Amino acid sequence: MCGIVGYTGDEQAAPILLDGLEKLEYRGYDSAGIAVFDGEKIHMAKAAGRLKVLSELTHDGKELPGFIGIGHTRWATHGAPSDTNAHPHCNKDQSIVVVHNGIIENYLKLRKKLESKGYEFRSETDTEVLAHLLDYYYTGDPVSTIIKVMHRVEGSYALGILFEKHPGEMYAVRKDSPLIVGKAQNGNLIASDVPAVLKYTREVCFIENEEIVKLTGNEMHFYNVDEEEITKEFQTIAWDVSAAEKGGYEHFMLKEMYEQPKAVSDTLSPRIKGNRIVIEELGMSDEEIRSIRKIYIIACGSAFHSGMTNKYVFEGLARIPVEVDLASEFRYRDPIFEPDTLVIIVSQSGETADSLAALREAKAHGVPVLGIVNVVGSSIAREADHVMYTWAGPEIAVATTKAYSTQLIAQYLLALKFAQVRGTVTDEELEEMIQDLKELPDQIEMLLNNKEKIQHFANRYIAARDVFFIGRGIDYAISMEGSLKLKEISYIHSEAYAAGELKHGTISLIEDGTLVAAVLTQESLYKKMISNIEEVRTRGAFVLAVTNVGNHEVEKTADYVIYIPKTNRYFTNSLAIIPLQLFGYYVAIGKGCDVDKPRNLAKSVTVE
Amino acid sequence: MCGIVGYTGDEQAAPILLDGLEKLEYRGYDSAGIAVFDGEKIHMAKAAGRLKVLSELTHDGKELPGFIGIGHTRWATHGAPSDTNAHPHCNKDQSIVVVHNGIIENYLKLRKKLESKGYEFRSETDTEVLAHLLDYYYTGDPVSTIIKVMHRVEGSYALGILFEKHPGEMYAVRKDSPLIVGKAQNGNLIASDVPAVLKYTREVCFIENEEIVKLTGNEMHFYNVDEEEITKEFQTIAWDVSAAEKGGYEHFMLKEMYEQPKAVSDTLSPRIKGNRIVIEELGMSDEEIRSIRKIYIIACGSAFHSGMTNKYVFEGLARIPVEVDLASEFRYRDPIFEPDTLVIIVSQSGETADSLAALREAKAHGVPVLGIVNVVGSSIAREADHVMYTWAGPEIAVATTKAYSTQLIAQYLLALKFAQVRGTVTDEELEEMIQDLKELPDQIEMLLNNKEKIQHFANRYIAARDVFFIGRGIDYAISMEGSLKLKEISYIHSEAYAAGELKHGTISLIEDGTLVAAVLTQESLYKKMISNIEEVRTRGAFVLAVTNVGNHEVEKTADYVIYIPKTNRYFTNSLAIIPLQLFGYYVAIGKGCDVDKPRNLAKSVTVE
Repeated sequence: MCGIVGYTGDEQAAPILLDGLEKLEYRGYDSAGIAVFDGEKIHMAKAAGRLKVLSELTHDGKELPGFIGIGHTRWATHGAPSDTNAHPHCNKDQSIVVVHNGIIENYLKLRKKLESKGYEFRSETDTEVLAHLLDYYYTGDPVSTIIKVMHRVEGSYALGILFEKHPGEMYAVRKDSPLIVGKAQNGNLIASDVPAVLKYTREVCFIENEEIVKLTGNEMHFYNVDEEEITKEFQTIAWDVSAAEKGGYEHFMLKEMYEQPKAVSDTLSPRIKGNRIVIEELGMSDEEIRSIRKIYIIACGSAFHSGMTNKYVFEGLARIPVEVDLASEFRYRDPIFEPDTLVIIVSQSGETADSLAALREAKAHGVPVLGIVNVVGSSIAREADHVMYTWAGPEIAVATTKAYSTQLIAQYLLALKFAQVRGTVTDEELEEMIQDLKELPDQIEMLLNNKEKIQHFANRYIAARDVFFIGRGIDYAISMEGSLKLKEISYIHSEAYAAGELKHGTISLIEDGTLVAAVLTQESLYKKMISNIEEVRTRGAFVLAVTNVGNHEVEKTADYVIYIPKTNRYFTNSLAIIPLQLFGYYVAIGKGCDVDKPRNLAKSVTVE
Repeated sequence: MCGIVGYTGDEQAAPILLDGLEKLEYRGYDSAGIAVFDGEKIHMAKAAGRLKVLSELTHDGKELPGFIGIGHTRWATHGAPSDTNAHPHCNKDQSIVVVHNGIIENYLKLRKKLESKGYEFRSETDTEVLAHLLDYYYTGDPVSTIIKVMHRVEGSYALGILFEKHPGEMYAVRKDSPLIVGKAQNGNLIASDVPAVLKYTREVCFIENEEIVKLTGNEMHFYNVDEEEITKEFQTIAWDVSAAEKGGYEHFMLKEMYEQPKAVSDTLSPRIKGNRIVIEELGMSDEEIRSIRKIYIIACGSAFHSGMTNKYVFEGLARIPVEVDLASEFRYRDPIFEPDTLVIIVSQSGETADSLAALREAKAHGVPVLGIVNVVGSSIAREADHVMYTWAGPEIAVATTKAYSTQLIAQYLLALKFAQVRGTVTDEELEEMIQDLKELPDQIEMLLNNKEKIQHFANRYIAARDVFFIGRGIDYAISMEGSLKLKEISYIHSEAYAAGELKHGTISLIEDGTLVAAVLTQESLYKKMISNIEEVRTRGAFVLAVTNVGNHEVEKTADYVIYIPKTNRYFTNSLAIIPLQLFGYYVAIGKGCDVDKPRNLAKSVTVE
């Protein structure tokens, strides 16, 4: 998730920009850059790596004169992290510069069009098309130019823009990416988020979708997409900086759970074109897809659980046998690779040591590897033969929520793409499933908004010592993730079991009051699950059930029931995980645990 | 495990035989029979099913006159449970009758020989050859006849024999199967085990291998295999009946752990012929074996864990890809069966509901099924296309020990057989591995005899709340079984983890003093495991390591080390499991748990 900041006023801009970017570091980034306008010329400084590099390059900004400028921390999406791909981006003569947070979904088409008009591109980013488009559509008036560009681009964006021909003026606009304006003593600011401006002001205004901002040192104007000036209200922020970083949420984990609708939507929408699945970056021909006879999904931790779910999805939809394996096991297993095997490696960071080693093991055997990663330019992204990105944005909390959710989505899309090519689903089925996928973000949002019911329930279990999660089939896969969420942040010993397997030993641990969370979203397995719930209740268990809306007879058997909205049976895990995440979170909060940084754990496991 | 009993004296024999058989019920059986000699003729009564059926058939024995007789409860090995296969077995004119506990390994060869001499067989049992052999070699003198037969048969046996031509005389002999003689007020008895005679006497004599017994109502003679009379000492049994049933062990579980060397040996030895693996009952042609391209191993509970181990063994030795699945999951998974797939179902009872359903699912898809079961004539044995038996004998304790150990062995043998046919191991490798297999019973015995070290350690952990078992590769598979043993009988929440996976979440549960049992028997993974041990020790864990003898450097890292003898890297689980079983047992004992009948659990899970 990129961060943008902009300043125009009476002070030297560059140090203010660097300071603001530093406050946005928590959002995650891999390169940074600033552009300042000294009244004659726009100057840029960009550097891959930490902000410190950029600060040293510019002597803490002192070397860059000028009272107006924009800055950016980049979290790579299109194009690896590098000096060249870092923002700002500019048109040919550097008279228009832009910083961008978001994804331009139709950038390839726009780039082709611009190239046909003679525009030359320096970077691999989607952002650069914005700089050239602003140039191409330039009318002499920045606001009308920006509106023309808005009409051409699809996707999400928050932009900060400077035009050399309009000294002292800074422009900004947003759609589906956050943007605020701050009114300070000695000038005005834009930023992705409140912390970047708190040092200078607590008076901020939240910009809505498709609103355009024009700032000078002492003036502010706001326009709608019809070029009509509008009035915006400012509010006074009472947060401290730490709370501000979390956008008002108590913890990054909660914030990231709430970012799931957007993360899921970002991962879905660029891949759905009408009634077809199109995964542009994949680079696999239909022939290659048709020839696959076996898939390994290799991963660690929650990413492994996402693979457990998607074994069912790939096998069910694309009818390809799938073996899911832990990366740490797979790499030493001496696996027997049959011809026409595809290895899929799933990793948030793209740097997980065991997963990377498994990738190399597969490649050493000549087996093609597809990486599903969240970090562009990461080792797995670079070394895999094919890459598919999860557009979750940076994840700060150690316990993954939104990255996991996007890993599920990416694999659904891939399975559907394979099914589409292999003809194992009909066009009608595909259409229906695409419709169901599109509804997931709103359904997730709804589940998040009903958090009180789970919170209330969680409070009763903060003293629990042992918890069991049970499910069958795809519900067993989500039980594993639900169990991990609880145990890793609350330190309660929870364990997931295939519901039918419990009686082969582990049921002896069920005693009076033991909490059992049962997931039952699969129509064909309801009755079996009801029997398994009866088994544990007979032994004294207290049963929390997660099931589909409408399935009210579960209330006769379970003690507490959470309903999830209806969706295709292959996609239920994207919904069932939400109450389980919330449960883990609220139990941990209730116990006073440091949920964002659980003891002993690291966010990205780059050692074996 | 069959039970035999015999009586000669002043009372009517049949009621005493029925009473003795009832006392041997705990050994497990599926049919029963008695033979009594009324001075003129030998009469027999046999019935499949419970003893009650036999009692009703004979009006509690009253209908069968005579003061001498032998009885038998049968646990099917060769031939399904049926009236015909029940013991006693006899020669053509029923003038020689025999009851047998054990397995005659070369019975097929002997049967062919006898058939060529005109002998007709009524049953499918190995025992019937003994009756005909006694007839064939009959010298006029029972003892010399018995010795001739002993020279011809291979395997294990305890026999009770009556000859019509020798009224009032009962003969008995044993090799590798138990046999005792009891001296009572009104006669003398033989039996498999003490409980059968305790109602009549506490004076018993334990017969040693290859000793022959001749009893009349008031005389006893003992001979060695050279026909020389020997003197035997009697001892007075102080046990109560319940202790007697357990052979002096405190629990069936402990008794069955101690029966593992014999169970393993019984499962191994009939299948090793020189330097080759021969699995006679399998009925798979070399062509069939060569054509296999994929194996599913399907099971529940510990049998599933035996499959987890043998995935490595089959893949490593026979180079066939193996997928192991829980029966309760597999049956509803809609699995994609590729051509040339073999499904292996592993079940102690042969009646496990989910495993049986999985078998039917596979057969419905036309996929051949091989059952590995302990109970002859069980549903899985009957319905599978191919069967391989584990000769563990009946298991009484709910927590499996010896059945699990023989499941490992049966699959090793199968993997080696496949490897031998497919040419994926050299003759030298095969020879070496067969040598290693042959050493396993003695090595297991040695580990059992060193139980004090584990017992001492276990006492320190009876108050543990959470225990983790870690390993990599094949050691991860045994960690799963070790963990299940502990949790199912001690109710301590233990969990097994692939050692490399722990840091992806679960390591947050490790705190000061948490017990982590680490298994490291694989040379190639030692260093990785040492790192993983370091990781948990750094977080405060107390580490029990199970490793190969000679690997003393582990003591630098782990807190407590148990060594297992050297064996082939594919067979280490057969040894590593012994200290883990003992650990689970002694922790549970220390906590005062009912180890033989843990709460909530059933021995054979015949419901879903």
